[in-house]
Amino acid sequence: MAQNGKGLKMPILPPCIILVEPQLDQNIGKTARAMLNFGLTDLRLIRPKASHNNKTARVLSAGADFVLDQAKVYESLKSAAHDLTFTLATTTRPREMIKDVYTPHHAMDLVRDHLSQHTHHKVGLLFGPERSGLENDDIAFCDAIITAPLNPDFSSLNLAQAVVIIAYEWFQSGIAPSEPKSRALEDPLATQNETQGFLTHLETELEKSGYFRAAHMKEMMTRHLRNMFARMPFTSQEIRTLRGVISSLVNPHGILSRQKKADKKPPK
Amino acid sequence: MAQNGKGLKMPILPPCIILVEPQLDQNIGKTARAMLNFGLTDLRLIRPKASHNNKTARVLSAGADFVLDQAKVYESLKSAAHDLTFTLATTTRPREMIKDVYTPHHAMDLVRDHLSQHTHHKVGLLFGPERSGLENDDIAFCDAIITAPLNPDFSSLNLAQAVVIIAYEWFQSGIAPSEPKSRALEDPLATQNETQGFLTHLETELEKSGYFRAAHMKEMMTRHLRNMFARMPFTSQEIRTLRGVISSLVNPHGILSRQKKADKKPPK
Repeated sequence: MAQNGKGLKMPILPPCIILVEPQLDQNIGKTARAMLNFGLTDLRLIRPKASHNNKTARVLSAGADFVLDQAKVYESLKSAAHDLTFTLATTTRPREMIKDVYTPHHAMDLVRDHLSQHTHHKVGLLFGPERSGLENDDIAFCDAIITAPLNPDFSSLNLAQAVVIIAYEWFQSGIAPSEPKSRALEDPLATQNETQGFLTHLETELEKSGYFRAAHMKEMMTRHLRNMFARMPFTSQEIRTLRGVISSLVNPHGILSRQKKADKKPPK
Repeated sequence: MAQNGKGLKMPILPPCIILVEPQLDQNIGKTARAMLNFGLTDLRLIRPKASHNNKTARVLSAGADFVLDQAKVYESLKSAAHDLTFTLATTTRPREMIKDVYTPHHAMDLVRDHLSQHTHHKVGLLFGPERSGLENDDIAFCDAIITAPLNPDFSSLNLAQAVVIIAYEWFQSGIAPSEPKSRALEDPLATQNETQGFLTHLETELEKSGYFRAAHMKEMMTRHLRNMFARMPFTSQEIRTLRGVISSLVNPHGILSRQKKADKKPPK
């Protein structure tokens, strides 16, 4: 969010994706899909060698038609970038140029920072043709370079794959750093009472079954079991399930309880 | 890098990519390319509906032929994951399951951490079919879930695009200098074969004991149990302990085995 003069938060405009001389319809379609997956909609094409309006492009956009519909075609980088305040070139191999080189991750932090500074700021992300990548002149035109870390022995990245990485990092950069994980628990975690009840239940049945073999081994074996189960945060429901499992194993088909009932029956 | 007993650094094994019923040759080819771009080479296919050996797959792998050559085909997730100690399912929509859900970024930190704990640890990353994504049973089998943050209004991610994001984050996680996060385990984690062996053992004994009550409840109850145990990373030793616990509960004081021996004794 950028601040306007009155201190109100204004939405920032996501960057545009600029493809220079893309050669394959399918890559344009897939680029549109990848863009929309991560909230980008402004697609610009410079001297495209392929169509962004034919069936192949549309099918591969998988529903991101309006990105293709709105795409604009330009004759030069200068015209495509006419309204941009910050333009970054993507490359896979290093170029001998005095430019800052950023990873996708750091570049998107930088882009978001730039966009937050002023509501009129606009950013473009430039991708070269499939076969050759960007020309040095195009890179020279840009403010900085983005290079993704890649396997040095196999660094030829597909155009749409390159777009997806940058678009993904763009989207990531907008998400407030959060807890690394969210446990989708619908049921509350077991209390210590419940957990201890389960462990005592288990140990009692194991004792009865002769599991501990010798008295001096019991302490060590019990600690081993407790350590193992303590590592895992069980829900209350799961503790009940585990107790049901023990009961079923030691008393198949509820034979014992039926026996007890039979014992209690008064003689006829 | 994992430490061996002598304090030497051992190389860690990159995770394998497992595609469940992939439908398009080109997606297998593009997956291979994306994998090799980020240093992954172990591709496993479960009941593929498409070829990984035909011309389309090879052309789209763009030179990652040896990933396709080495790809292995399996009939089930159980067999594809037989040697894995940690398996993660990728999903785009939330599932009602009690599983940890990680972003690709945090998941890959976790994976690297897991691999650093023991040289025998192996990780698998599971991707569902193009149209439908992973089945709930496949997700239940896994230890955790990876979900990438996506535009909620357009979250259908192409299969190869999903692979590239995860593979990219895997590669990234190896570059960023990170503190060692958890102590190395003395005992390696159980392989899927060991874990599945325990679960089958448990289910067999529960079946015998009448735990599942009605046939139609068995599937649901089994999935519940599997989900619960899949959340917990057991070591091989712990799996052996759990099997000992089951054996002791269903066969107190080894009565059955003594009975069998007695039965075998020749009559005097």
